[in-house]
Amino acid sequence: MNIYDIAKLADVSIATVSRVVNDSPKVSEKTKEKVLAVMEENHYTPNVFARGLGLNSMKTVGLVCPDVADAYMANAVAYLEKNLRGYGYDCILYCSGYEEEDKRQAVELILNKRIDALVLVGSNYAGEGDEDVTYIKDVAKQIPVFMINGYIEDDNIYCTIADDYQAVYDATEELIFSGRQRILFLSNSHSFSARQKLKGYEDALTTYKIPVREELKLYMENSIHTTRDELFLHRNLEFDSVIATEDGLAVGVLKYARARGIDVPGEISVVGYNNSELSISCEPELTTVDARGEILCRTAIDSMMALLGGETIKKKTTIKCHLIKRNTTDF
Amino acid sequence: MNIYDIAKLADVSIATVSRVVNDSPKVSEKTKEKVLAVMEENHYTPNVFARGLGLNSMKTVGLVCPDVADAYMANAVAYLEKNLRGYGYDCILYCSGYEEEDKRQAVELILNKRIDALVLVGSNYAGEGDEDVTYIKDVAKQIPVFMINGYIEDDNIYCTIADDYQAVYDATEELIFSGRQRILFLSNSHSFSARQKLKGYEDALTTYKIPVREELKLYMENSIHTTRDELFLHRNLEFDSVIATEDGLAVGVLKYARARGIDVPGEISVVGYNNSELSISCEPELTTVDARGEILCRTAIDSMMALLGGETIKKKTTIKCHLIKRNTTDF
Repeated sequence: MNIYDIAKLADVSIATVSRVVNDSPKVSEKTKEKVLAVMEENHYTPNVFARGLGLNSMKTVGLVCPDVADAYMANAVAYLEKNLRGYGYDCILYCSGYEEEDKRQAVELILNKRIDALVLVGSNYAGEGDEDVTYIKDVAKQIPVFMINGYIEDDNIYCTIADDYQAVYDATEELIFSGRQRILFLSNSHSFSARQKLKGYEDALTTYKIPVREELKLYMENSIHTTRDELFLHRNLEFDSVIATEDGLAVGVLKYARARGIDVPGEISVVGYNNSELSISCEPELTTVDARGEILCRTAIDSMMALLGGETIKKKTTIKCHLIKRNTTDF
Repeated sequence: MNIYDIAKLADVSIATVSRVVNDSPKVSEKTKEKVLAVMEENHYTPNVFARGLGLNSMKTVGLVCPDVADAYMANAVAYLEKNLRGYGYDCILYCSGYEEEDKRQAVELILNKRIDALVLVGSNYAGEGDEDVTYIKDVAKQIPVFMINGYIEDDNIYCTIADDYQAVYDATEELIFSGRQRILFLSNSHSFSARQKLKGYEDALTTYKIPVREELKLYMENSIHTTRDELFLHRNLEFDSVIATEDGLAVGVLKYARARGIDVPGEISVVGYNNSELSISCEPELTTVDARGEILCRTAIDSMMALLGGETIKKKTTIKCHLIKRNTTDF
């Protein structure tokens, strides 16, 4: 039962139902009573979004991401902007950076823009370590919040996440099956997504009774040449394979291996993440995880439009990732 | 002489000058006369932007680009958004696609959003072939238009362009000096920028009395594997070097050469364009042109803020590109 059904049953327009929900003085008392009666008979409770959605709506959605120059985020923003505009919504973009205080400020500022909903792109808003996410919960008291690959449990926060845990668990398992024992976990982040990946890595090792070694978890900047150079600083570290949480890190490993004359995948197997253009630019081309960014965005938009139509929607949707096998692994 | 100078000389606030310029009823007749007298004495004519800039300003800038998933545009949008917000301006983003009708519609739609200025990112708005740019000139009658790497000559249109002509002229010359004669020009576009690049290529050949061969100009989609496969379809085409107008095209050439066992740079030299992450992901790493996207954006923002301050600004600024020599050329 949604706003369209109520309009039909009460024999009024959707705009009239919206006016009643928003308590507009433009509706006659008689019409108002009729609509409210139909709503009551059908146990229909208008959701927060429908309530915000009055005639005052600017038909604008706020998009916030840390950095739109990042390929994953750029693709997400491009997809969201194009498809939201297809529904008549404009997008205001805020790039917040990665620092806690900057993210908080961006979210607070964008709320002043009379947006109908907020979309947080990327897993950096779901709290890194002890980070406080109260500011996001506060926004959700006013407008619905949609998270792309982040998860916060609260009313009016709707999350679409990739199953990064399972993807890394499966990739680690494949490496183990192909005879690898010393698997390096290489990451640039402690975001929600990076934490899921780390857990998938650790759980797969534990399942196959391979010790989880602290020295085989390395964190560094996601930059091809920086990664290559950092690995030179760790040249005594022995590993026979790598799971990288970003393709850029994985390409850095390939550069390091080439510089040292190490064969890939013979001596070192490498798995990247995101299936970006980088993964087909390098040599050998990367085995990588397709994190389904576009499907996450499509799901978030479908949910938003359903909520807008007065439907009740799921607060958490998980999308399965897909391992793309190319030439940096021998499985 | 700008709006700040007038405010100082008239001993009023900038807001008051703005009110006078915008003919607000909130200013007393006496103050109005005083400010107008100072403006007249100093031959100060408020520019269109200052006129638009009244107390009704939403402090919002419209950003339009064909596709923010493109790395060049994503970097430009990230830089513009961050730095405009530093000046207190929010950004509304529209991704227009590449089709003439879609670009026209995007620009018309965004004008309804009460923006203070419009920024067009990328060289696809400056008219490809016979394309009509009247719709952009119409916008410029209402608000200032800033073009990033595009050029349209008209009042209230301010263009910052990279010297793509000279960059390709110089790269072609370097290839000729290193003994190359059959230089393939590979492009995915007929945009303003692509036309400048083509002209640079042709003029350099002409200077050194090398015939311009039509069969050595190829146009194809900017996709690594598509480029590789298309070149296989042209495998009888003889060339000893390539100037590509995008790094993705150049990486496609490397994939083709590897598949055929052709040595780079020995048998084929390759020059890419944009100095993207792709150019350091591939092997060998690409010689490429740094098209100075960030400097173009910074210049456009500086111009916008100067215009906003009541200054007269240049309508066209040209920025020199920089050839980055890596391992796909032997010069």
